[in-house]
Amino acid sequence: ESGALNQVSRMLNHTLSRAELGHLLESSPPRTRKILWELLDKKRQSKILPFLGDELIADVLRDMSAEEVADVTVDGDIDIDDAVDILQVLPEKVTQDVLNVMDDQNRQRVEAILSYPEDTAGGLMNTDTVTIRADITLDVVLRYLRRHESIPATTDNLIVVNRKDELIGLLPISILLVSDPSITVREIMETDFHRITADTPDDQVAQLFEREDLVTAPVVDGNGKLLGRITIDDVVDVIREDADHSLMSMAGLDEEDDIFAPVFKTSRRRAVWLGINLLTAFLASAVIGMFEATLEKVVALAILMPIVASMGGIAGSQTLTLVIRGIATGHIRNNNLSWLLSREILVGLINGLLWGSAVAITAALWFSDITIGFIIGGALLINLVIAVFSGSMLPSLLKSMNIDPALAGSVLLTTITDVVGYLVFLGMATLFYNLA
Amino acid sequence: ESGALNQVSRMLNHTLSRAELGHLLESSPPRTRKILWELLDKKRQSKILPFLGDELIADVLRDMSAEEVADVTVDGDIDIDDAVDILQVLPEKVTQDVLNVMDDQNRQRVEAILSYPEDTAGGLMNTDTVTIRADITLDVVLRYLRRHESIPATTDNLIVVNRKDELIGLLPISILLVSDPSITVREIMETDFHRITADTPDDQVAQLFEREDLVTAPVVDGNGKLLGRITIDDVVDVIREDADHSLMSMAGLDEEDDIFAPVFKTSRRRAVWLGINLLTAFLASAVIGMFEATLEKVVALAILMPIVASMGGIAGSQTLTLVIRGIATGHIRNNNLSWLLSREILVGLINGLLWGSAVAITAALWFSDITIGFIIGGALLINLVIAVFSGSMLPSLLKSMNIDPALAGSVLLTTITDVVGYLVFLGMATLFYNLA
Repeated sequence: ESGALNQVSRMLNHTLSRAELGHLLESSPPRTRKILWELLDKKRQSKILPFLGDELIADVLRDMSAEEVADVTVDGDIDIDDAVDILQVLPEKVTQDVLNVMDDQNRQRVEAILSYPEDTAGGLMNTDTVTIRADITLDVVLRYLRRHESIPATTDNLIVVNRKDELIGLLPISILLVSDPSITVREIMETDFHRITADTPDDQVAQLFEREDLVTAPVVDGNGKLLGRITIDDVVDVIREDADHSLMSMAGLDEEDDIFAPVFKTSRRRAVWLGINLLTAFLASAVIGMFEATLEKVVALAILMPIVASMGGIAGSQTLTLVIRGIATGHIRNNNLSWLLSREILVGLINGLLWGSAVAITAALWFSDITIGFIIGGALLINLVIAVFSGSMLPSLLKSMNIDPALAGSVLLTTITDVVGYLVFLGMATLFYNLA
Repeated sequence: ESGALNQVSRMLNHTLSRAELGHLLESSPPRTRKILWELLDKKRQSKILPFLGDELIADVLRDMSAEEVADVTVDGDIDIDDAVDILQVLPEKVTQDVLNVMDDQNRQRVEAILSYPEDTAGGLMNTDTVTIRADITLDVVLRYLRRHESIPATTDNLIVVNRKDELIGLLPISILLVSDPSITVREIMETDFHRITADTPDDQVAQLFEREDLVTAPVVDGNGKLLGRITIDDVVDVIREDADHSLMSMAGLDEEDDIFAPVFKTSRRRAVWLGINLLTAFLASAVIGMFEATLEKVVALAILMPIVASMGGIAGSQTLTLVIRGIATGHIRNNNLSWLLSREILVGLINGLLWGSAVAITAALWFSDITIGFIIGGALLINLVIAVFSGSMLPSLLKSMNIDPALAGSVLLTTITDVVGYLVFLGMATLFYNLA
């Protein structure tokens, strides 16, 4: 048995790559995860930290002393930007303790990046730049590089700076390798590229990388001084998290949460979301309750009313999803939102007329009552138009109030389509059947 | 006025980058888009094709002859993999016409990639590899590279092949630049890396790039012969589309659709989704209709019944979203699904008891009727558990039937939670009030 254990331990510590091991831990339920983790060497444990999600990192670091965390994060095998990402998972007080036990040099490097918010170019960047001057020849550049023990694997450009450390150009390695060694950097360096400042939001950085097919990009401060560089692997994480964020938030989930979190942690989180939705469900019930007398007289209304509410919810969430994604990718802005709004309203009208008629005919035949057909057809049309209107406008409205549209949008939208759906349908019925 | 037009035209043709122009066109409503497009030079039009979405490309190419399309796609300024992506947008017959008017060399290059499905490594790859032999010195490599006019900008590795063109290693440029020129490629080349075969699905390629922080990776055939290489920019597109796909499909939208498609095109697409949902809404109504007699006697049931259905829908879609994402990222597999299922059922039970009690008390007080409290509390509990069970199991069930879980999952889930919600609540009421 101990032989089998040794085999597993060897696999974990040697055969699997760090990324594979991180993925294995992320995919394991709590108990398995704990066993696997304890089979790892101390050194190996620290090396796979950058490959774990925020929640797992927090779990792992909770049992460590400040000295241990400091050792683990700046042991030379973790990129400085990854180390900062790890520290940012910790409570602020703990981070301070860890900084206090670091040596001066490491503390300064970490603090330089910590000073930028996590979701900006400054928070994404690394400080491992290879810089050169413009007035040297390529031959000198090649000899200078050979004096390095190593350069970062993801180096597609050497960064050209002047005496004041200001960014003045980029020398692509692909150009360096095919050019005559006797010409100077200045003659072939690129000067036409985007300067990313440290305060640029990370989603704009991601859009730039995606649009321009970048692999790395230098980051400068407000005066054009070089601070560091961003590499595509960190941008890929931003793109993935950004896209996942919309999907998960719309269901009230957090994309950073551990999928295999234990029962009580998961229950607590879900409970909040269900509670909020319960309030909106009671609101809808209260609206229905206003028409108790009508429902008592025409029970067919109770049978049909969910159709009006649910079709509104479906149509609205289509528009909402489209607009939330369009805003996130930068395709929808204030200047084209009004075109989109009119298009959506027309689409709502067309589909409202189409499916409103279908529902009207079906309901009229089902209950042998033409009036109920007119009522439900009309209510469906009105609810669809209001649904697509709300779906178009809610995201930018919420954004202007600094509320995350992906998180709040779907709850608010369902509330609107439920309330409007029941109100219009039962209200119209009360009028048409002269029951008021 | 013509001066202003000239200015706009100059901006479109010269100032904006191709990527910026592509983004501008994607973000423009149809009429603006048409005007902008016609202001572009013919040459410029072709150059921005790779920066447009599939639907826009199809619109643009529709008016071109086969000769024009052939010119545009293989004019030397578009990567061959991008050219193939463009051709794949066209109907098969048109693609064949275009291939027929190409010269032999271009046709062979295009057909080599076209022979692989679009969503595999073969469909993603490019054929612009820079290959070297293992037995030469780095000095020879550097001189060999200098004989090239250019090498692709995204070249982080030179690919080492043997006489039979079989992939045997990678020489990272970052190692080449810092190493002693007199040593041979064989001494420092990397041999420990994943071999991607041409038939690997693109989402697996994306997971590999993301996990191992790759910038490029070589692609081989079944015998290890080098076919081409995949670059990170194409992988980023896969990651973005994959994540967007889950989000958009759950609302019945297609991530490839043009956000600014005209009214009738949009209406037609949405109508299908609304129609499917209407059928499920009628199914729910039919279930309610089975309890017409009960509803007639206890109208409070009509007021409260949407709460049971809607809470089930919310709880189920949380689990469904989690599982769909987990499967897409590879975190959820058959071996850990059973752990997740038990966790979800426990979470459903806990939240069912919590919110079931809350609803029970509220309903009992509202209608001064303890029986209705018991009924709704019990129905809520049962519906939540069935909802999380369905949300956990539906994705892998649908997947095994080759149905896209993101597209069909949410409709099916809502149908289940609506039907079960109404059935259990009204059924229990019928029993408890002795109305059967």
